Amino acid sequence: MFQNLAQLLSQITPIDPIYLKKAQKHLDNLTKPVGSLGRLEEFAVKLFAIYQGKFPIQIDPALHILAAGDHGVCIEGVAQNPQEVTHLMILNILKGGAGISVLAKQYNMDMVLLDAGHKGICPKDPRARKINTLEETGNIAKENAMSLELCEKLILEGANTVYNASQKGYHIFSIGEMGIGNTTPATALFAKYFNLDPAKITGPGAGLNAERVLHKAKIIQQAIERHNEQKEDSALAILASLGGFEIATLCGVVLGAAALKYPVIIDGFISTSAYAAAYCIHNAVKDYAFLSHASAEPGYQTIIEKLQKKPMLDLSMRLGEGTGSALALGLLRSAQTIYNEMATFADAHIETDTYHTK
Amino acid sequence: MFQNLAQLLSQITPIDPIYLKKAQKHLDNLTKPVGSLGRLEEFAVKLFAIYQGKFPIQIDPALHILAAGDHGVCIEGVAQNPQEVTHLMILNILKGGAGISVLAKQYNMDMVLLDAGHKGICPKDPRARKINTLEETGNIAKENAMSLELCEKLILEGANTVYNASQKGYHIFSIGEMGIGNTTPATALFAKYFNLDPAKITGPGAGLNAERVLHKAKIIQQAIERHNEQKEDSALAILASLGGFEIATLCGVVLGAAALKYPVIIDGFISTSAYAAAYCIHNAVKDYAFLSHASAEPGYQTIIEKLQKKPMLDLSMRLGEGTGSALALGLLRSAQTIYNEMATFADAHIETDTYHTK
Repeated sequence: MFQNLAQLLSQITPIDPIYLKKAQKHLDNLTKPVGSLGRLEEFAVKLFAIYQGKFPIQIDPALHILAAGDHGVCIEGVAQNPQEVTHLMILNILKGGAGISVLAKQYNMDMVLLDAGHKGICPKDPRARKINTLEETGNIAKENAMSLELCEKLILEGANTVYNASQKGYHIFSIGEMGIGNTTPATALFAKYFNLDPAKITGPGAGLNAERVLHKAKIIQQAIERHNEQKEDSALAILASLGGFEIATLCGVVLGAAALKYPVIIDGFISTSAYAAAYCIHNAVKDYAFLSHASAEPGYQTIIEKLQKKPMLDLSMRLGEGTGSALALGLLRSAQTIYNEMATFADAHIETDTYHTK
Repeated sequence: MFQNLAQLLSQITPIDPIYLKKAQKHLDNLTKPVGSLGRLEEFAVKLFAIYQGKFPIQIDPALHILAAGDHGVCIEGVAQNPQEVTHLMILNILKGGAGISVLAKQYNMDMVLLDAGHKGICPKDPRARKINTLEETGNIAKENAMSLELCEKLILEGANTVYNASQKGYHIFSIGEMGIGNTTPATALFAKYFNLDPAKITGPGAGLNAERVLHKAKIIQQAIERHNEQKEDSALAILASLGGFEIATLCGVVLGAAALKYPVIIDGFISTSAYAAAYCIHNAVKDYAFLSHASAEPGYQTIIEKLQKKPMLDLSMRLGEGTGSALALGLLRSAQTIYNEMATFADAHIETDTYHTK
């Protein structure tokens, strides 16, 4: 168990590059032109290094961690949908009807739902766990989303969810979220962490019209100006000031996976803001994270340039919940499959100086 | 069974747009912001229309059809590898060691291997079938790859492989290939069908250096000039003149799937040339085909603009065999899953005028 943030962060170290070389050497000896499996090879190399050279690579079983929360900033009219939809969707997710419910089933991912603080009672379900008694964050246009103490607590809840699951044998983690209004704190975090103009990266979320996107960008600008008047400006303080309960929790999942040396799959726009927070807190998390898909939110391309990462898929999705993470898990399993199961040139009696060429 | 090409082509009709509308209406009533599953929705809509409105969508079981062949043009030094690798890889594929072998297993695809004419004995394996006694195509730089009669025969073999498999219950098909040297005929076909300059779309294939890519482009130019001196210039005649045995066979698979109204997944560069031939023979095949992935071959982007299709994945792969088709099948299963299994707004007690917005 992680007792505090300092202890959690002290356990995060970069992957050892020796495993990257070893993995590429293995791949170059398989029956295909060198490098011809493209990014599948990149994924396999990274998985091999994350698991510190264990062969065969074993990513399953997989656990999807979905965090949900409500947002005080909704009062500013930044969201298309009423806040009650957060609760209704939590019920729908657990009942099996949401996008992530059906995809998690298809991809054989178990799921936990962390109620990080929302307007509604946490459902009685073995997969659901309440980790915060507050109903919504502070309205970030006027006040901090949460205290530093609560932010740290939520991060530890996320990290310890990974810890406990790893004790049960889970080998890979993915993140997703539900929270009406949460593209607003996500955008605020991106803008603050990477010094971007909110007007240029604010998008429609679930479906705002152009006028309301403009309003949303102004609210985000206001939140950043408010934040900038404060003394505290660490990556953690920014998360507490401009983030959300579910975002802080998922930031903890990313940090926890990195500390325990497991791969973690990041979903779309909001999950990527949790990853960005984790990256700004400790940048070695980049070695453990896979960005699953390019969100259709307009600011996404600018943001991933700052993160220097290329998403695995680009399917114009913008649902959240972890729907992109599920699809990405399928691709990581394929990376695992080729790494573990393909024949070598020797197996196939092919001279390596013929087929095996750059 | 298809008896001849005219009969095969007479059965190909576009999908009925009424199913596209019906499918989108269904998707718009599921618990997610309208359109938020992006291209997964596009795939689901297309699948629903291909299967003529049957609910639930059912794409499984899946059959991968891999065609292999050798190429007379190899004598011109256009390939990195010796021709014997075609045979060795056929053995490796059937033995389970090739990229497609391990991915087909992961994705639960059955496979047939059509020996469309190669230098070697067709292995005794229930999945392998010899469909041509010739050992290699004519050297396209100097002569037609094959006769019109043989080209039509191979197309029918491909189409009837789909027919027979559909009788056994297969619901979706994918294509892949093996044939040392086959980026040369593939590039020649693209250049001729779409009036492109070979110098601009010729790439390294399995790994030629820049000088040899230049030489390859000249050979392709020579093949096209030779072809242009002939009278016959139909899409079929171009395929016979500049194509390959495996390419003609896979063109038949695409035509057969379209005629029988099944989806067909197209692999990378060479499989896309088989699709291009089918498209030029009967353009309604576009309604039934999914381009699985963007090949890393440099000409690919120019070519898909001509085909007006966007590939599903972009993973810098260039192996062939159907490795991209396998990954794409996973995404089509996800499209099926969301279409068939997600809850409606009514199920989740969510007012459609709130969450359900554009």
